[in-house]
Amino acid sequence: MSQTLSHRLAALRSFLAEQDLDGFVIWRDDMFMGEEVRPMDERLAMISGFTGSAGYAVILQDRAAVFSDGRYHLQLENQLDNTLWQWCDSAPDAMQNWLAEGQQTALRLGYDATTTSVARYHKLPEIAEDATLSWQGFARNPLDDIWLDRPVHHRQAAYQLASDITGQSAEEKITALQAELAANGQEGLIISAPDCINWLLNIRGDDLANTPFHLAFAFLPQQGNVVLIEGESPDFETVSWQDFCRTLPKGRYGFDEATLPMALFQALERPEITLEPAPCPIYMPKAKKNAAELAGFREAHLRDALSLCRFWFWLEQCQDITDYQETDLVALLREQRRKDDSYLCDSFDTIMGSGANGAIIHYRAIEGKDSAICQDNLLLIDSGAHYKTGTTDITRTFIIGTPDDEMISAYSAVLSAHIALARAHFPKGVNGAALDAICRAPLWATGRDYAHGTGHGVGHILSVHEGPAHIAKRSGPALDKGMVLSNEPGFYEAGKWGIRLENLVAVTPSKALADGFCFETLTLVPFEQDLIDKTLLDSAAIQWLDHYHAVVFEALAPHLETDVMRHWLSQKCSPLL
Amino acid sequence: MSQTLSHRLAALRSFLAEQDLDGFVIWRDDMFMGEEVRPMDERLAMISGFTGSAGYAVILQDRAAVFSDGRYHLQLENQLDNTLWQWCDSAPDAMQNWLAEGQQTALRLGYDATTTSVARYHKLPEIAEDATLSWQGFARNPLDDIWLDRPVHHRQAAYQLASDITGQSAEEKITALQAELAANGQEGLIISAPDCINWLLNIRGDDLANTPFHLAFAFLPQQGNVVLIEGESPDFETVSWQDFCRTLPKGRYGFDEATLPMALFQALERPEITLEPAPCPIYMPKAKKNAAELAGFREAHLRDALSLCRFWFWLEQCQDITDYQETDLVALLREQRRKDDSYLCDSFDTIMGSGANGAIIHYRAIEGKDSAICQDNLLLIDSGAHYKTGTTDITRTFIIGTPDDEMISAYSAVLSAHIALARAHFPKGVNGAALDAICRAPLWATGRDYAHGTGHGVGHILSVHEGPAHIAKRSGPALDKGMVLSNEPGFYEAGKWGIRLENLVAVTPSKALADGFCFETLTLVPFEQDLIDKTLLDSAAIQWLDHYHAVVFEALAPHLETDVMRHWLSQKCSPLL
Repeated sequence: MSQTLSHRLAALRSFLAEQDLDGFVIWRDDMFMGEEVRPMDERLAMISGFTGSAGYAVILQDRAAVFSDGRYHLQLENQLDNTLWQWCDSAPDAMQNWLAEGQQTALRLGYDATTTSVARYHKLPEIAEDATLSWQGFARNPLDDIWLDRPVHHRQAAYQLASDITGQSAEEKITALQAELAANGQEGLIISAPDCINWLLNIRGDDLANTPFHLAFAFLPQQGNVVLIEGESPDFETVSWQDFCRTLPKGRYGFDEATLPMALFQALERPEITLEPAPCPIYMPKAKKNAAELAGFREAHLRDALSLCRFWFWLEQCQDITDYQETDLVALLREQRRKDDSYLCDSFDTIMGSGANGAIIHYRAIEGKDSAICQDNLLLIDSGAHYKTGTTDITRTFIIGTPDDEMISAYSAVLSAHIALARAHFPKGVNGAALDAICRAPLWATGRDYAHGTGHGVGHILSVHEGPAHIAKRSGPALDKGMVLSNEPGFYEAGKWGIRLENLVAVTPSKALADGFCFETLTLVPFEQDLIDKTLLDSAAIQWLDHYHAVVFEALAPHLETDVMRHWLSQKCSPLL
Repeated sequence: MSQTLSHRLAALRSFLAEQDLDGFVIWRDDMFMGEEVRPMDERLAMISGFTGSAGYAVILQDRAAVFSDGRYHLQLENQLDNTLWQWCDSAPDAMQNWLAEGQQTALRLGYDATTTSVARYHKLPEIAEDATLSWQGFARNPLDDIWLDRPVHHRQAAYQLASDITGQSAEEKITALQAELAANGQEGLIISAPDCINWLLNIRGDDLANTPFHLAFAFLPQQGNVVLIEGESPDFETVSWQDFCRTLPKGRYGFDEATLPMALFQALERPEITLEPAPCPIYMPKAKKNAAELAGFREAHLRDALSLCRFWFWLEQCQDITDYQETDLVALLREQRRKDDSYLCDSFDTIMGSGANGAIIHYRAIEGKDSAICQDNLLLIDSGAHYKTGTTDITRTFIIGTPDDEMISAYSAVLSAHIALARAHFPKGVNGAALDAICRAPLWATGRDYAHGTGHGVGHILSVHEGPAHIAKRSGPALDKGMVLSNEPGFYEAGKWGIRLENLVAVTPSKALADGFCFETLTLVPFEQDLIDKTLLDSAAIQWLDHYHAVVFEALAPHLETDVMRHWLSQKCSPLL
């Protein structure tokens, strides 16, 4: 970047002085409140240099800090210029504590109302209970005016997905939702989450590198046609936010506080408009994948497994693997996936952690700062892609060279946990907290645990992290038929290596348990037999594993190019019993 | 009873007419809000004939109903005179719905403020959201004036427990609590739960048949001596409620809404008195048993196991077991326990369910209405006792004659669930909902489940059901060191038989998991080998069971009277592997 970080900070502080503000808060969010943002919206990175996917900066005249969670502490340490920036863990009272370190007794802070959700706005007063903070919203982010070399985003129009991929027409989805609006007595629904809009309209787009969204808001009237707001599509009426807000007629409208920007909410505040907050009614039907979506997931997983196995085969044949850097392997894996004509893009930045880097849970290898591949150590690869029919997310942990006993013991324990969840049956109404415990129990029994969740929802060619259900210690909604989630227990030895084993699973009716569910495993890649001590698995787990490997071999073998590869796969899939 | 139920109902309706009330609500609670009440306080049974341990009656001029939960539906059906009473499930909106069935648009209902907790009082308005109900509290229950043959309760003074049994003096407990009061800036604590008072003062009493409480309230000033309110003890100052309320000086006082009767709260409402609600601070230290209490539990469990094994031995030798009624066996088991000189009383009414009765989760055999013992069927016995050093609660399921395959398969699955919980390790902070899932997972995998919780806390010579922790689907506080809980999964085939396997366990530090916990099993009675198919248990479960049986044999064998019994026990405890 030609503009230095210190110049940007100085420019923002000039703005603060002009506006008589003591400070400004920059979230990582853009106006769409999603996990990924366009380069033009990377305002947190622009001002601070920190590129993590969560966090915020607070800039005062005399000091500035970035706040992010434990996943990113190392990255904060590496990426921030400590002559300009401090960093803090983003605990609930972190900002308040940091502000309290200063001498000022009353602070006036600015925030960008276009990147602040209504829900976040309502929490601003909680930051300082003693009311020494006052907040001033801006309808335009001051960074945008001082960002001299701001990237330009060239918009493409949204494209339509075929009905054999979506399994349900946009008309059907819209009709169902309009019936709900009629039942609620609401004149319409303001939809602010792009993944909900893309699902509802069966559209996708190219706005983001790893998420095949078309970025837009939408308005669904109780009767009539949907309107795309700030979007581009040949198939739908499109309007600007200003025009939408100005022309919305009298009525009661639903909206989602978690994703509607405060600036848009305020533009709609008129006496004749009643805005009724509720979680977007699209979250749940979107999460429950239909038969066509699940079939698409299965096809995508077959393609992805072939790419990953070809990469793994190459990895094992490679004579000089320790000459490669982690970023080299990230590129090679992406090249392998790209050869598939259904491949759209990676679903997130690949985590390629060799040795000690594998113990950094959200490690991202950065060219020039990454490590060479370690001999006689583990290599953790967490990667995935979007295909024309579905989305993948897989983690495997490989051994480069010869493992030691502790690696084998830990891998076997993580595999026990993975299988305990994979083979679980559970009644209707059970949520992810119960399943989280079922997964962790075998690891806990060996004295191990992991400091992250067990599973996240996965969107269908949408965001690779999707709500509302999850598998984690915190409670959440009950799991339901058709939901696709990850199953990813792990174990990490700081300074040595990391292990994580992740498949995607779909919630499916249980044949054993009346009105209950179990999981269909979608991912089709073998586990590492050299890292399994079968005396550490119970017999039901071994049965599951042998069955899984038989399914994997049957699915992949016909598509492999050579007998050598088929033989290699048959060894990877050989039964333990 | 000489006074008929219809006479009592008519007398209450005369009272309603005099008071210009449309109806009256009778809870099952007495003023101490515990699970068990004295015969003189069995007002729900007095008016309706229903003797269940939970529920309430609503009496209008033209109709009356008893409300209780699913455990008691059969008992309601059996015990209520259907010419006088209806019954309903006690769902949250049950009373409202039942009241709405009538013609009246506005109802004035009376309630007894001495048996209505402050928490329940606050929920009364929720019963009818449309405000057609108004409530009038009475400081005396009208039933007490029309109950001609009301039992008389002869009070005994509270007695002291020795310090080697309590492990901590009352002075120490009081000092710790007074320090908390000082930190809170409170002048004192009003303690309304008798088990908290008995624990704090190291006293017990004979007021209830199955709970060795002394029934009383207490006041703990921030400085000075504790005062027993409505209690009798040679060791503490005792006062009446009236005197206590009249003489309480100006100040801020803590109290527990869940157990303080509304009548007592109202008697304290004076401008200079500030009452601050919070869960009683005694719940948590009382739940975390100290080393002496745990040693006492272990001794009680050895004694109880010997009694239960002697009973089981007799059961197996008995040539004419099908000539016995369930109530005969209840009496014989009690006689067996009574022979122990440490025995105080049963800790609850024994559940003795032969065949189909075993499938009724809270079945109570009633003389004259009970069944003879069924041949070639299961016998479920859930029983326990208080001893001078601790409390027991155990369920075993026995086979009378020859089991069929389904019994064996179900018993093995329930045992798998029991063992999964018994051998669990878990980090600090994990609550009962996570452990509930770990217990149920093996049962769910076989298509089975049970419609009750997995575990309840157990008091130390106090209530056999004790909060605040539990093991159940609903969330609760984290389990902590020293807590004693039950581990009691089950499976029930309606109309055929029931299986439940219950041991008590103590939360103890895990050697495997740093800062984590595991369970020490306190109960010492073998499981039924004739009902175990070892191919349905995983190897870790078999190892646990064999180890458990070895521990049981070693503990019990030296105390058995004859070689025949020792040989019998050695067979019950023989290893599966």
